Amino acid sequence: MTYCLAIKLHAGIILGSDSRTNAGVDYVNAYSKMHTFNVSEGRIFVLLSAGNLATTQAVVNLLRRDLEDPNVACSLNTVGHLFDAARYVGNLSQRAQNEHSDALKRSGVNPEASFILGGQIGAQPHDIFLIYPQGNYISASPANPYLQIGETKYGKPILDRIINLNTPLEDAARCALVSLDSTIRSNISVGPPLELAIYPTGVFRLSHHLVLDSDSPFYTRVQQEWNEGLKKAFCGLPRFDWE
Amino acid sequence: MTYCLAIKLHAGIILGSDSRTNAGVDYVNAYSKMHTFNVSEGRIFVLLSAGNLATTQAVVNLLRRDLEDPNVACSLNTVGHLFDAARYVGNLSQRAQNEHSDALKRSGVNPEASFILGGQIGAQPHDIFLIYPQGNYISASPANPYLQIGETKYGKPILDRIINLNTPLEDAARCALVSLDSTIRSNISVGPPLELAIYPTGVFRLSHHLVLDSDSPFYTRVQQEWNEGLKKAFCGLPRFDWE
Repeated sequence: MTYCLAIKLHAGIILGSDSRTNAGVDYVNAYSKMHTFNVSEGRIFVLLSAGNLATTQAVVNLLRRDLEDPNVACSLNTVGHLFDAARYVGNLSQRAQNEHSDALKRSGVNPEASFILGGQIGAQPHDIFLIYPQGNYISASPANPYLQIGETKYGKPILDRIINLNTPLEDAARCALVSLDSTIRSNISVGPPLELAIYPTGVFRLSHHLVLDSDSPFYTRVQQEWNEGLKKAFCGLPRFDWE
Repeated sequence: MTYCLAIKLHAGIILGSDSRTNAGVDYVNAYSKMHTFNVSEGRIFVLLSAGNLATTQAVVNLLRRDLEDPNVACSLNTVGHLFDAARYVGNLSQRAQNEHSDALKRSGVNPEASFILGGQIGAQPHDIFLIYPQGNYISASPANPYLQIGETKYGKPILDRIINLNTPLEDAARCALVSLDSTIRSNISVGPPLELAIYPTGVFRLSHHLVLDSDSPFYTRVQQEWNEGLKKAFCGLPRFDWE
């Protein structure tokens, strides 16, 4: 399993991901699920991936290979809009899934993968897209300015309470970290190191990209203080009338 | 969808449930999913239900009918242990599902239902059981002394942080309410009125049974103070080193 999320704010984009992959419970590894790309000036893309690891690696490899090929019809350097880039990722994902689908089906293995693409192209506004395994895609809404893939449920309540379009970048990054941590506590197939990236709109590079392992002092402090804060909030709740 | 939970503590049992049922998004109703039974002195059973409404109603009707029949081989008045009662509920559930399964399969309707049974028989300890749609059943563990059915994920993190075997009954009831409320906020198919029941061990009746609608003053206060407490906890989190 996996948990990745992206938050679209007026001020920019927050991206977060865990690193645990598993093929059954007896083969657990750590792979980064946050992918950046060497693209032309004035454009930036960050891709988050969940699902079949071979499919997600194939998509990232194809994206990088197309970037190196000056004769290619479509690459992250040629797409004119972010939704073109989302469509392109969806096409590559379908291609990668179809290549081995017969053999995978015979083995009962699911080739599907989901992606979140965040970025900005030139003077266009920054945006985030969720690309489904079938290759179609959606963007976030102003009312729910975030997208999630993988194990999405445990980490959703805190996003719904804290995030809106005007949330400052650092607060949203902290919220993404709490959302990731809540998921890790409840689902053993989501695990550290956690990656957090901050993209302030218009700068075309990540202002910060943190990799937080379980013994990282900052992550440990956030975990402790969140746990204590929650317990304090719980102790402050109204008593029943008979208490 | 549905969300029901039961917590087993040294001091007794907490039971909680929502009341929303739906057949598609265009047919939404409110039904109680918390069922009590008129049984002999010195025994008590509370049943929580999730899944196909016809199946859950059939099971509750069969349980009540068997209680009224003095010649029946097995009823909630004759079972010797709580796990016998769980097995009995599982058998009735399988019977109810099988009766219409061919017709339901043809219509693509899932007849499955899950149950949580909490209670106590005589001098035996109180306990809670989760009964799967297949009729088999498990009890809670001392490390995770709660069971959930239906939409379980959104409400799990707060249980994992607060609940242990020594949690007082009222604190656990408040925690169940927060767990239900977190689920309602994130899944529209879970909804009020909420039911909360408190069973102190050895008394063979519920000490409290609350039905909280969305405009109940107590529930509204809990929602507000929990929201404020969470925001306060969030604002107290450590800053990144560059802030």
